[in-house]
Amino acid sequence: MNPTIELLKSHRSIRKFKDQPLPEGALEEFIRAGQSAATSNQVQAYSIIRVTKPENREQLAELAGGQPWIKACSEFLVFCADMKRATEAAERAGADVVRGMTEQLLVASIDTALMAQNVVTAAESQDLGICYIGGLRNNPEQVSELLKLPDHVFPVFGLCIGYPDHNPEVKPRLPVETILKQDYYDDSQDEAQVAAFDDTMHQYYLARTGGKKDSTWSQELKPLFTSKLRPHMKEFLEKRGFGVK
Amino acid sequence: MNPTIELLKSHRSIRKFKDQPLPEGALEEFIRAGQSAATSNQVQAYSIIRVTKPENREQLAELAGGQPWIKACSEFLVFCADMKRATEAAERAGADVVRGMTEQLLVASIDTALMAQNVVTAAESQDLGICYIGGLRNNPEQVSELLKLPDHVFPVFGLCIGYPDHNPEVKPRLPVETILKQDYYDDSQDEAQVAAFDDTMHQYYLARTGGKKDSTWSQELKPLFTSKLRPHMKEFLEKRGFGVK
Repeated sequence: MNPTIELLKSHRSIRKFKDQPLPEGALEEFIRAGQSAATSNQVQAYSIIRVTKPENREQLAELAGGQPWIKACSEFLVFCADMKRATEAAERAGADVVRGMTEQLLVASIDTALMAQNVVTAAESQDLGICYIGGLRNNPEQVSELLKLPDHVFPVFGLCIGYPDHNPEVKPRLPVETILKQDYYDDSQDEAQVAAFDDTMHQYYLARTGGKKDSTWSQELKPLFTSKLRPHMKEFLEKRGFGVK
Repeated sequence: MNPTIELLKSHRSIRKFKDQPLPEGALEEFIRAGQSAATSNQVQAYSIIRVTKPENREQLAELAGGQPWIKACSEFLVFCADMKRATEAAERAGADVVRGMTEQLLVASIDTALMAQNVVTAAESQDLGICYIGGLRNNPEQVSELLKLPDHVFPVFGLCIGYPDHNPEVKPRLPVETILKQDYYDDSQDEAQVAAFDDTMHQYYLARTGGKKDSTWSQELKPLFTSKLRPHMKEFLEKRGFGVK
């Protein structure tokens, strides 16, 4: 183990931030580190909107389902999958471009996520805290309008960055042996391992809430798959030119 | 800048590996660092197949379009989006689960990518080199069969890990100001910035190939969008239970 691996393993989401700006030039440095991540065929299928206007931060906090840390953090970034720039560049070079392919949706989403995770590691290496905001996908249409996103660009998630003003525990994860499989997908041990992880999470919730939260991993997952989470996503993406064919 | 940011910025894909195994326990350590990445609502929607059988490595190298480094690297991992484990856990806890949502495809793809990028950073922090293999999506059906992936699991990309046996240059990226936008998506400067980046890549290709590769970023992008890259992806994903609705 080395300090970088220690850093990665110490991640937890931060939702309370000090009222303290980032050092001059730090954000650009983090984004440059983000861009250094691998990108499918050098496509770099992403853009980042840095949201500085307080009224827009406020609206995004609402649109994400009431997440006030979007207002309070020092920097709020919206990471967008962007197939506009690269396809237009190819078009100007003479390509007869095909858009709307599901593969392009994957490329752009993956490119964006790899890049963002490097931004996160860079920020955390400078003692900053972060929180991903998947909740922007609650209302992707309104988020897109607010940020004036054109077709072939969509908001994948937001990211709060700032100096932590609390110190939450690192959350447990599934055992390595549950997610790492040798040569073939074999989930014959999954049920038992998940049951053990349910116990781990049960203890974690009890300890963290002084006995109030009496739940498990499996229990907490229930509403995620029963309420048809974000049922608008297919139509929204297709309207924006993603995953049409 | 600090050593972690230096490390992130020094990334380049490695395609020639020494015949040298990873230290005992290192792979598990990298994966544990990967799991420490943020995950949407703690879902952890991923599995990793560690491919050790030489005949399977050989077949994957072919299926990825002829990428012999898949055979030569010390470790080859297939990162899979996995909605099976979490939905089955929720089901056992009593949920009336809905599968096939496009939002679940996004959650699983993003979770997988964030996790993988941490694995990469951890490996690179130990002087290892890596290469992502998106080419597995050339033949996702055959890859899935070979690795015995069930429904609600699909191969997002592969990853070669090993000790570098060459030292390629870091590839240029678009300027930060092209991808970072303030408050709104404004691409009025994109065309000029892309033209400048085309020059950068032109010089890079000429220098790297002793004048043989006379191309630009835009030129290199052309075949990616003209040949309907991986047109099977929509049907494949739907068949596997992703992005159906």
